[in-house]
Amino acid sequence: MAGGGAAAAAPPLSSPWRALLQRALDANAHLRHSTYFQLATVGAGGRPANRTVVFRGFQEHSDKIQINTDARSNKIGERRNCPFGEICWYFTDSWEQFRISGSIDAIDGSSADPAKLQNREKAWFASSVRSRLQYLGPQPGVPIIDEEQVKDVRLDPSADPVEAFCLLVLDPEKVRQHFCYTTC
Amino acid sequence: MAGGGAAAAAPPLSSPWRALLQRALDANAHLRHSTYFQLATVGAGGRPANRTVVFRGFQEHSDKIQINTDARSNKIGERRNCPFGEICWYFTDSWEQFRISGSIDAIDGSSADPAKLQNREKAWFASSVRSRLQYLGPQPGVPIIDEEQVKDVRLDPSADPVEAFCLLVLDPEKVRQHFCYTTC
Repeated sequence: MAGGGAAAAAPPLSSPWRALLQRALDANAHLRHSTYFQLATVGAGGRPANRTVVFRGFQEHSDKIQINTDARSNKIGERRNCPFGEICWYFTDSWEQFRISGSIDAIDGSSADPAKLQNREKAWFASSVRSRLQYLGPQPGVPIIDEEQVKDVRLDPSADPVEAFCLLVLDPEKVRQHFCYTTC
Repeated sequence: MAGGGAAAAAPPLSSPWRALLQRALDANAHLRHSTYFQLATVGAGGRPANRTVVFRGFQEHSDKIQINTDARSNKIGERRNCPFGEICWYFTDSWEQFRISGSIDAIDGSSADPAKLQNREKAWFASSVRSRLQYLGPQPGVPIIDEEQVKDVRLDPSADPVEAFCLLVLDPEKVRQHFCYTTC
């Protein structure tokens, strides 16, 4: 499904839930956090793990959901034990919840698949330079909140993805949507 | 830790994260969704499950987090396989995330512990009558959005919890807080 196929095949028809999700994204577009959702995985000892991540768009010609992450983060190790995730995406203005579960692929620089590496590169350049800087920090999972931290860090805007940059791709298998006026 | 102890023991000192969480709740109190968070559990086949739930306060004299749910929902069956959960609570105005993991206790009407049953009853009466109505519906997980659905349902406001009403209590073992200006 990754881009770069030889034949000029027509893109597949979008899944029905895509239209609902797009409507929710449009209705909540004025809110910065409308592109944030919670990604659950199964972590150490088989326990659940849950964190906020940012929607980085769909993979070209597919319904796969892209998320940028740090290759050093727990998410990567967890994926080896259980390659599945469930997104819970709550839109605060339309009171609408999407639960999207599926398998997760993690693409770092060591991938042997040229199409995947190309997608990773696209995701890197689609991020702001400021956003890319977090992958140069000494440890993952620590957002840059102090300008002092980064003022001496230089990043050539045309430079390729750094080693720590990893693209997560969730391939939706099951999607549930409903409105949540009370407990979801 | 449940209320109703015989001795008039002083309440234990609150955990340090309680003050941070209270500050976030205060700072975001103008937003209805500030009391909503995402609860991850491990579901069928060991896969992660994730959904939005509503914070129903702390259990008296403890740091345990209360959530109302429907005893017929998947969360209950999942708990039997893996009694742990992780809350991801993102405050959209202060850009602050709390990840709270711990064990989950589910208290329905069959509990043999009088103190737990008392907590369940308190949680029931602390809910609005409208909120209680959802536990009278034919199936769980379907919020009441159509007034037609409920106009013929009668509920005596002084009536005890119905069978489907279940109180979930998450006992925090690990709490992480940070600000999320970019990906968390």
